[in-house]
Amino acid sequence: MKVISNSVSMQKLMFQTKLSKKSIGFVPTMGALHEGHLSLIRKARKENDIVVVSIFVNPTQFGPKEDLKKYPRPWKQDKKLCEFLHVDYIFKPEAKRFYEEPYLTYVNVEKITNILCGKSRPTHFRGVTTVVTKLFNIVQPNNAYFGQKDYQQSLVIRTMVRNLNMPVRIKVMPIIREKDGLALSSRNQYLSEEERSRALSLYQTLLYGKKLYLEGLTNPKSLRLRMYRFLQRSIDKKKDKIDYLEIRDALTLEIAKEHHAKIVIAMAVFIGKTRLIDNILLG
Amino acid sequence: MKVISNSVSMQKLMFQTKLSKKSIGFVPTMGALHEGHLSLIRKARKENDIVVVSIFVNPTQFGPKEDLKKYPRPWKQDKKLCEFLHVDYIFKPEAKRFYEEPYLTYVNVEKITNILCGKSRPTHFRGVTTVVTKLFNIVQPNNAYFGQKDYQQSLVIRTMVRNLNMPVRIKVMPIIREKDGLALSSRNQYLSEEERSRALSLYQTLLYGKKLYLEGLTNPKSLRLRMYRFLQRSIDKKKDKIDYLEIRDALTLEIAKEHHAKIVIAMAVFIGKTRLIDNILLG
Repeated sequence: MKVISNSVSMQKLMFQTKLSKKSIGFVPTMGALHEGHLSLIRKARKENDIVVVSIFVNPTQFGPKEDLKKYPRPWKQDKKLCEFLHVDYIFKPEAKRFYEEPYLTYVNVEKITNILCGKSRPTHFRGVTTVVTKLFNIVQPNNAYFGQKDYQQSLVIRTMVRNLNMPVRIKVMPIIREKDGLALSSRNQYLSEEERSRALSLYQTLLYGKKLYLEGLTNPKSLRLRMYRFLQRSIDKKKDKIDYLEIRDALTLEIAKEHHAKIVIAMAVFIGKTRLIDNILLG
Repeated sequence: MKVISNSVSMQKLMFQTKLSKKSIGFVPTMGALHEGHLSLIRKARKENDIVVVSIFVNPTQFGPKEDLKKYPRPWKQDKKLCEFLHVDYIFKPEAKRFYEEPYLTYVNVEKITNILCGKSRPTHFRGVTTVVTKLFNIVQPNNAYFGQKDYQQSLVIRTMVRNLNMPVRIKVMPIIREKDGLALSSRNQYLSEEERSRALSLYQTLLYGKKLYLEGLTNPKSLRLRMYRFLQRSIDKKKDKIDYLEIRDALTLEIAKEHHAKIVIAMAVFIGKTRLIDNILLG
């Protein structure tokens, strides 16, 4: 396994890899790898000749008051995990050189980035689409792997790739959870023991919603209300805060109407100061 | 020579071309080819194994009151010219399929797109950078050729390519002029005989500025003022209108200060209803 930090070297190397007719599977990450990431890497390993993992805590997708500085960076552990899973290349650029001045160019997906997570994090998705475009241009992958936990992100990226004719196939893999249901996230390590236990309310609310839905409560408004109340009861009103809980069309992210073929129930909740997200697909 | 209109077919074909280790030279155009375009195609022919010309009157780079509908589309003539210059592929997409709904994604270069032509055409450069990104992703060229006549455009594209790590080399070729100095443009054919003669004032003003500059008048403010007055006297005040005449740093497009190493003098003038642009590099 090789670790490469220079964008030009990486791009040249990947170009040669392509010319040698090897397929490239790419897993873009911010490091602090957990089983969720590893499931993407394993899938990439199965489906491609060459596997590239990028590790880059991308500053442009963090808001000014967010956790850029304290975001975990366990480099040695990440490297070991990649080695263990037979990754071929880690691409690990430096932020300063990666956004070389004058930096003026952004990729923007409209409409579906202004809702859900985009509403409380207004520049987040612009940061994501811009960094993913840069990484795709450098790594030139045949296949790129994303987690369903960031459901809105996966739709935003699919839209960008389709709209801009990017020559890459996007694959979205299921959410990986702890045994008790908590969706894996690099941010879970911010949680105190008490918060960790309250964090279970996200998945429990989703399970409650699923149960209601399967019992026949398919009207999105009523379903959302029942779930919202359930969630409110499960968290600590003084310490936690619901950012959103919404039921939307799973393909367009429009607000779901009665009898939608496929819906996503998505939520973001601050447990203490830690913002957690989760979602479930139904129908 | 093959004409291809389907983006997916074109992308697959270009991918195979790349795998066969052939270099791809790309000339993106809106058709109505003139000697300016042909100089780019000839250069591409010299420097690459495969030459691709795209012909696409891109709707997203026209403002709502601009000349999208009447823009010339002499397809048979364009095709002949490409054949004559041994172009390998013409890529000629249909607008409706090229921007397939829901179309939500735009590439935006900030700052240097809000001045000069970007000031009077506020969505123009966003349309250009978005279509060029799409075309680059489809054609996957090693080299892409642009004309210096659209000087600001060439800087915007260079910035985009560098910022987004696009794997393509941008080459900018000199302005081609009629014998009397008029810069070639597909829009010149809108001009009546009288307008055609007044249109010479653009280049004559540039030549006048160059003369003053070489005589030692290098202060941008004074130089601009002298040129502006010269231009005002050369056009018909009742029928024509100066959009801008500016002297800027040739690399950053910042307003030029005294003793700038390299400057660009750029202008846009409406001769009748036809908006013409021209520029010159000095220093």
